[in-house]
Amino acid sequence: MVLKSFIEVHPDSHFPIQNLPYGVFKRETASDPRPAVAIGDYVLDLSVLASAGLFHGPLLSNSDCFNKSNLNKFLELGRLAWTETRTTLQKLLSAEESILRDNASLREKALVPMSQVQMLLPIAIGDYSDFFASKHHAYNCGVMFRGPENAINPNWFHIPIAYHGRASSIVISGTDIIRPRGQGHPAGNSLPYFGPSHKLDFELEMATVVGPGNELGKPVDVNEAANHIFGLVLMNDWSATTLSPWIVTLDALEQFALDAPQQVSIVPTGQKDAHVLTRSNFRHLYWTITQQLAHQTINGCNLRPGDHLGTGTISGPEPDSYGCLLELSWNGQKPLSFGGTSRTFLEDGDEVIFTGYCKGDGYNVGFGTCSGKILPSLPEELLQFSVVSASNCT
Amino acid sequence: MVLKSFIEVHPDSHFPIQNLPYGVFKRETASDPRPAVAIGDYVLDLSVLASAGLFHGPLLSNSDCFNKSNLNKFLELGRLAWTETRTTLQKLLSAEESILRDNASLREKALVPMSQVQMLLPIAIGDYSDFFASKHHAYNCGVMFRGPENAINPNWFHIPIAYHGRASSIVISGTDIIRPRGQGHPAGNSLPYFGPSHKLDFELEMATVVGPGNELGKPVDVNEAANHIFGLVLMNDWSATTLSPWIVTLDALEQFALDAPQQVSIVPTGQKDAHVLTRSNFRHLYWTITQQLAHQTINGCNLRPGDHLGTGTISGPEPDSYGCLLELSWNGQKPLSFGGTSRTFLEDGDEVIFTGYCKGDGYNVGFGTCSGKILPSLPEELLQFSVVSASNCT
Repeated sequence: MVLKSFIEVHPDSHFPIQNLPYGVFKRETASDPRPAVAIGDYVLDLSVLASAGLFHGPLLSNSDCFNKSNLNKFLELGRLAWTETRTTLQKLLSAEESILRDNASLREKALVPMSQVQMLLPIAIGDYSDFFASKHHAYNCGVMFRGPENAINPNWFHIPIAYHGRASSIVISGTDIIRPRGQGHPAGNSLPYFGPSHKLDFELEMATVVGPGNELGKPVDVNEAANHIFGLVLMNDWSATTLSPWIVTLDALEQFALDAPQQVSIVPTGQKDAHVLTRSNFRHLYWTITQQLAHQTINGCNLRPGDHLGTGTISGPEPDSYGCLLELSWNGQKPLSFGGTSRTFLEDGDEVIFTGYCKGDGYNVGFGTCSGKILPSLPEELLQFSVVSASNCT
Repeated sequence: MVLKSFIEVHPDSHFPIQNLPYGVFKRETASDPRPAVAIGDYVLDLSVLASAGLFHGPLLSNSDCFNKSNLNKFLELGRLAWTETRTTLQKLLSAEESILRDNASLREKALVPMSQVQMLLPIAIGDYSDFFASKHHAYNCGVMFRGPENAINPNWFHIPIAYHGRASSIVISGTDIIRPRGQGHPAGNSLPYFGPSHKLDFELEMATVVGPGNELGKPVDVNEAANHIFGLVLMNDWSATTLSPWIVTLDALEQFALDAPQQVSIVPTGQKDAHVLTRSNFRHLYWTITQQLAHQTINGCNLRPGDHLGTGTISGPEPDSYGCLLELSWNGQKPLSFGGTSRTFLEDGDEVIFTGYCKGDGYNVGFGTCSGKILPSLPEELLQFSVVSASNCT
């Protein structure tokens, strides 16, 4: 029998009792940010449940991890604590259990309509690496820039490639993104110019959220890596890095063996409706998330609770499953037509929306959305800065 | 007349009243980490001075920034607050001022011998970038790997190149470093192997410590960049990244126009004495620290208080001023002889010590030391992990 909550959850919802993803929210009325899980159209305030003494289990009963403004302390507790919490929450929310269901005052305090809250970055992220783990993406990029003969370098098959991303510019879904400026170099011998980015792209990714870390110098065994993974979020790796607000746990995803379809839609500037650009799937990754995590530590590098590991752009084998405009428009050579307009790369005013979910038997385990809109670069007169140029300081 | 403290400071000390660098220390007896400045052979506990109400200035009198376990909040306050603090401290420590000098009980609480404290990482570092700002270093590396014709790529002269480093593995001076392991690839068509790094190096760098940050999407003008810089530390960019514990402020360095000589010594494994390997100078940087900071933000990237910007290896024009073993031994071709032994790269047990100071009139403004010892890679039997290898997960 399918587990049911006393809270009405629409069959299309991403957040049934089988999911219970974690986030951090703030009420409309001023209050401190607090950890929560999503259930249907509500956020369930975990600090209220903790204050009411409803976490009886041995690992959570004496913890203050839900009276924090981020999830870092909860992540550090590890898998047994996460499972204990999930068991407690599924019981409290189930249709048969009266403790919360029949206590109007507690329900009032603990359950807040999603429409009345602001979601925040749920974690103080120490470090974030971004991998390059989709073979189709690596192949397509290689073909574009090096030709089909040398599309994938031999070492790509021996180690999961990654770069280290910047934590300061990670933002929560819904945050506007200002088109970046930088130096470009036209063909020939002319000097570089400085200006707004011409080829602004999205990249459909997911990110692994790290639970307990490891000590500097002590790598994590690939067979132990899953115990260091709390869950997954949607991630758009563009000028800044945008994350979806709800972390879906490995516990919730386990039964789907990470067969998680995702899609990217765009609301073109000046329009109202979203148009689907591409549909991909988490299973298109060549390097698994446990391999990525083990590789990140194999030289002795330490992870800390809340670190993120991006997968890199997730592209499928077919052109309509490519995960970024670089591939979808083949570096601008094949414009995409939709909704009476067309795109090679992103235009100012475009809103990009990622979503994804795993299909269960009568319910979905979903990631919600990860969205952002492109704002134009700041006008020159507001910049007022001297462009750094070649000048010797010695 | 040269400013004098009532505290006896040896003329060779790095920490006279003209310096007053900031760090965070812990007493031998269990207590919380607290901000301090160095004065001679003492650390001056700033939380004690704050509790005694000795910060009267408008910006510091109501701040709790010295009752924190790191300097982030103080850094966020900005240059006016830093200058106010420096003025207060120089007055309190001066030979003519009785408040601290003649109060034995306050002195006892506030001044702790350096031999009785442990220095900690003074900052919760959000992000750290590492530049490549020395032209001599860029040229030498280019000659080794691409030949003298193409030693420096043209774009090197147009933008300060940097990579983004990992914050989790930044450690304080004195921390042992375990030799990393990773994949190598012998010549020819053989498969990669996995094992300890063969060419472990040090890199003589300094790091800029960021004060107030900037908003995402709003770059910092290069002419305003100095107001975002709190100070400088010595930095060894090797397997982990080692920092010296005392941050020397721009206020203290101002008069030297960043003419700051540095040297690297090594205590070879099994020996007791340090041998100087190289002497360089901060002024050998082609790109200044304000140019580095402005460039870091020019695409809209946000900095946060306490972020670090490494300079990259600081090499001078002469072979005895190169900043790393790669250059000093010319990629292993020219072993260095010293103390009855020789080195191309670092051996297990070697201790590397950076130091540096600016020479004033009758005093030094110094950075102290930045040291670390290489420990061998963990034995295979302790690793027990499955090496990540090529396997497809789809």
